[in-house]
Amino acid sequence: MSLGEFGLIGRYFQRTALQHAGGNAAVALGIGDDAALLEPTPGCQWVISTDSLVQGVHFPGVYSPFDLGYRALAVAVSDLAAMAARPLGFTLALTLPDVDESWLQGFSDGLARCAGDHHISLIGGDTTRGPLNIGVTVYGEVPAGQALRRSGARPGDLLCVGGPLGDGAAGLAVVLRQSLPEQLDAGGRDYLARRFWQPRAQCELGLALRGRATAAMDISDGLLQDAGHMARASGVALHLQRSLLPHCAALAAWPECQRLDWMLRGGDDYVLLFSIAAADLEQLGDWPVTVIGRVEAGEGVWLDGQPAAADGGYQHFKEPSDG
Amino acid sequence: MSLGEFGLIGRYFQRTALQHAGGNAAVALGIGDDAALLEPTPGCQWVISTDSLVQGVHFPGVYSPFDLGYRALAVAVSDLAAMAARPLGFTLALTLPDVDESWLQGFSDGLARCAGDHHISLIGGDTTRGPLNIGVTVYGEVPAGQALRRSGARPGDLLCVGGPLGDGAAGLAVVLRQSLPEQLDAGGRDYLARRFWQPRAQCELGLALRGRATAAMDISDGLLQDAGHMARASGVALHLQRSLLPHCAALAAWPECQRLDWMLRGGDDYVLLFSIAAADLEQLGDWPVTVIGRVEAGEGVWLDGQPAAADGGYQHFKEPSDG
Repeated sequence: MSLGEFGLIGRYFQRTALQHAGGNAAVALGIGDDAALLEPTPGCQWVISTDSLVQGVHFPGVYSPFDLGYRALAVAVSDLAAMAARPLGFTLALTLPDVDESWLQGFSDGLARCAGDHHISLIGGDTTRGPLNIGVTVYGEVPAGQALRRSGARPGDLLCVGGPLGDGAAGLAVVLRQSLPEQLDAGGRDYLARRFWQPRAQCELGLALRGRATAAMDISDGLLQDAGHMARASGVALHLQRSLLPHCAALAAWPECQRLDWMLRGGDDYVLLFSIAAADLEQLGDWPVTVIGRVEAGEGVWLDGQPAAADGGYQHFKEPSDG
Repeated sequence: MSLGEFGLIGRYFQRTALQHAGGNAAVALGIGDDAALLEPTPGCQWVISTDSLVQGVHFPGVYSPFDLGYRALAVAVSDLAAMAARPLGFTLALTLPDVDESWLQGFSDGLARCAGDHHISLIGGDTTRGPLNIGVTVYGEVPAGQALRRSGARPGDLLCVGGPLGDGAAGLAVVLRQSLPEQLDAGGRDYLARRFWQPRAQCELGLALRGRATAAMDISDGLLQDAGHMARASGVALHLQRSLLPHCAALAAWPECQRLDWMLRGGDDYVLLFSIAAADLEQLGDWPVTVIGRVEAGEGVWLDGQPAAADGGYQHFKEPSDG
């Protein structure tokens, strides 16, 4: 990039909307010096997660830059939600093949929308020329000892999810314009495409689960595979009940076998999966969470009493030419 | 990447050498959950910087994976040194075209060596398939209010550098096997190539400058360009004296005009540039720093009394085919 190009790019990311997106005012020094400075809240731990998005792996070749910006930040913030952290800010390492102002406008608008949804600021970044690659690192904080890990599920806990399953995979089918069932109307298509491109990280739910849930994670690779991670980390068996798995109305347009496969093995749902004692669940109030099973002694993930295989799991989006 | 490939890659980065590289024991939870947890030191601010390295932009096509791993982390840590921060840890967002075990071994060994040099741990990461892209985000801390910014230089301060200038650009010439002067012996070549591939971030000097220097930054884009950033941020003029600029013995093999161009406009030196009152410099003790000029009222960067242009500055490494 020439210096002029760097200046141009900087203008899109140094906008007020990205620098002061909300009330989490922990940023002592943002973009413009060698590094950013953040003010920790006394008694809190720092929570950090990093993700990179590559075209053809994490998103299709045809997309709106706004959606891509939103999604890049949302999937990273979802990891903070899973730890019950309050999001504070993010850094962006952006590799771009060229300087396209309409792309930069849309992408930075999408980032700013997601940043505003979570009241976080862009605190630093790095821009390089090369094949498109979007690296987002998110920062949050949690009172010491209150982070929710994958390892705390105990026999007797209920197993819950924070929202409908299968939206991510069905949304991808819509985005890729795969053959869609006739029963799926325009409203359903729009809803699902939006769920794929603009997933809402469940940060508020994560905060509500502090001190209540025993283990939590976000579902990014499909329920069965992610439940397997939690079962292993906690040293327990997770028993799921098929009839309890929640899905949105739009998913009813697909045959049950397809729907179930997406709910169990589809990725990119970004809803929380958590274990919680029944008494603590009652105290959670009116969060729209769904009990989908129980934690028991043993190991592995079980569906209606049978061992459930993740079947190689979900590898996010792959271009059809990937094979 | 298949799950098996992810597991294979994970083995290289979850080694003890990277997870517990040193004594900065602030990592409460590292790789393996949704996010990492870090324990802040009471009274400290967090310092964060992100960089991405792309082949053909930041490093040549021919390289040793060990060197690349070392350099990727070192250049990021240098930004912490420039803020007078104590480095604590880093995250790695790695995009790889394929899974090459000897590459992974060398790269992770180089990362581990640099992590060990600075007593920091790899606290989290993300691996994706795609064109090679290395995203490193580093974390450090500094007592509140003691970070060194670019904006504090005051008329009357001395302007100093923490080491020789021009090594990065001369090292790149050696690495690219450009036509080299006959006077440059094998020892000089090795020294310069090592300075390019394994720059030593000046963290200890940064710590020593806390409470003493008035402004600091690391020289990554060339002395004139970076001094220009400091002059603007501080609202002062920086007056450099050509005869004071330090260089290593190996650089004497080149004609003076080439040497001077690299010292003024070459990039990738990663030594600190800082302003400091004369009395405070005396108290600094026996750090090998060099006074190269003075801070005065006014604006811009001056060399021997003449306005000095950065001439478009240094754009890091570019493949010759880039034009």
